[in-house]
Amino acid sequence: MGIFSKDIQTLDDLSVHTLRDIYYAEKQIEEALPKMVEKATNPQLKASFEKHLGQTRGHIERVEQVFEMHGVKAKQVTCQAIDGILAEADEVSGDVDDTQVLDAALIASAQAVEHYEITRYGTLIAWAKQLGRNDCAAVLEKNLDEEKDTDKALTQMAEAKVNLAAAE
Amino acid sequence: MGIFSKDIQTLDDLSVHTLRDIYYAEKQIEEALPKMVEKATNPQLKASFEKHLGQTRGHIERVEQVFEMHGVKAKQVTCQAIDGILAEADEVSGDVDDTQVLDAALIASAQAVEHYEITRYGTLIAWAKQLGRNDCAAVLEKNLDEEKDTDKALTQMAEAKVNLAAAE
Repeated sequence: MGIFSKDIQTLDDLSVHTLRDIYYAEKQIEEALPKMVEKATNPQLKASFEKHLGQTRGHIERVEQVFEMHGVKAKQVTCQAIDGILAEADEVSGDVDDTQVLDAALIASAQAVEHYEITRYGTLIAWAKQLGRNDCAAVLEKNLDEEKDTDKALTQMAEAKVNLAAAE
Repeated sequence: MGIFSKDIQTLDDLSVHTLRDIYYAEKQIEEALPKMVEKATNPQLKASFEKHLGQTRGHIERVEQVFEMHGVKAKQVTCQAIDGILAEADEVSGDVDDTQVLDAALIASAQAVEHYEITRYGTLIAWAKQLGRNDCAAVLEKNLDEEKDTDKALTQMAEAKVNLAAAE
């Protein structure tokens, strides 16, 4: 896009573009999570990543629902941000030699992913409300709430167990 | 790193690696902000990016202070996450044709940057505390607080003015 013309004219165009961005991001996260489950050692952390994989599939369905409500095609656009976040997660985890320290690194990476999703859903919800689409905002809010809960649960797990084990 | 050996053995190694990552990220943000000031139309948004540029320079100094307190060299490692976030910000802003919509897009991009910093500083602070370095944690908390305040101010500006203008 944007080689010969600027494709985003309105806030609605920008919202659709950003929805396609988060759609791509969610699909990349769906692919990345099984590898994180495999790498994690702490059983609670493994279970948390597995739970979030199920939630992510639900998020993808909700994003598809919003495309449909909005009357536009469910399409992805490459999200360089999530590509960078996941590439960095992969690189760092490949560089850690100790399983307990690896768990701490995996949590940090997962929280970077969550924060990306939190900011994008927050923005999409604000724009949807501004455009009078409270119906779309309400669906996206379900995703946002689950991302925030996941982030909080990861902080709790890190502080109560994983960081403690990693520092030993 | 990591081609022939895994360089991260301890939580301390991981903390230093992540500090080098945020050091790189802050320096990239310092480079990106003047371009965002230039692109913004709303004077309040321009002023907010200018203010944050000053804060970012302070954050870089604080990160350097933490390197020194920790007795390690202030060094950057490439942060693919911030590279992706900033590349995406640049791409999207180049694709927007309307100045009011561009302001909304710039706020969204800036908030993605803030959220990346919030997650990284949050992690670094938790690890520093776990490692008994409350002194380092206290310095990093000053950066975290400013990133959170910036994020909140951007939300407020978006909801009170910029999104409204963009939807007109």
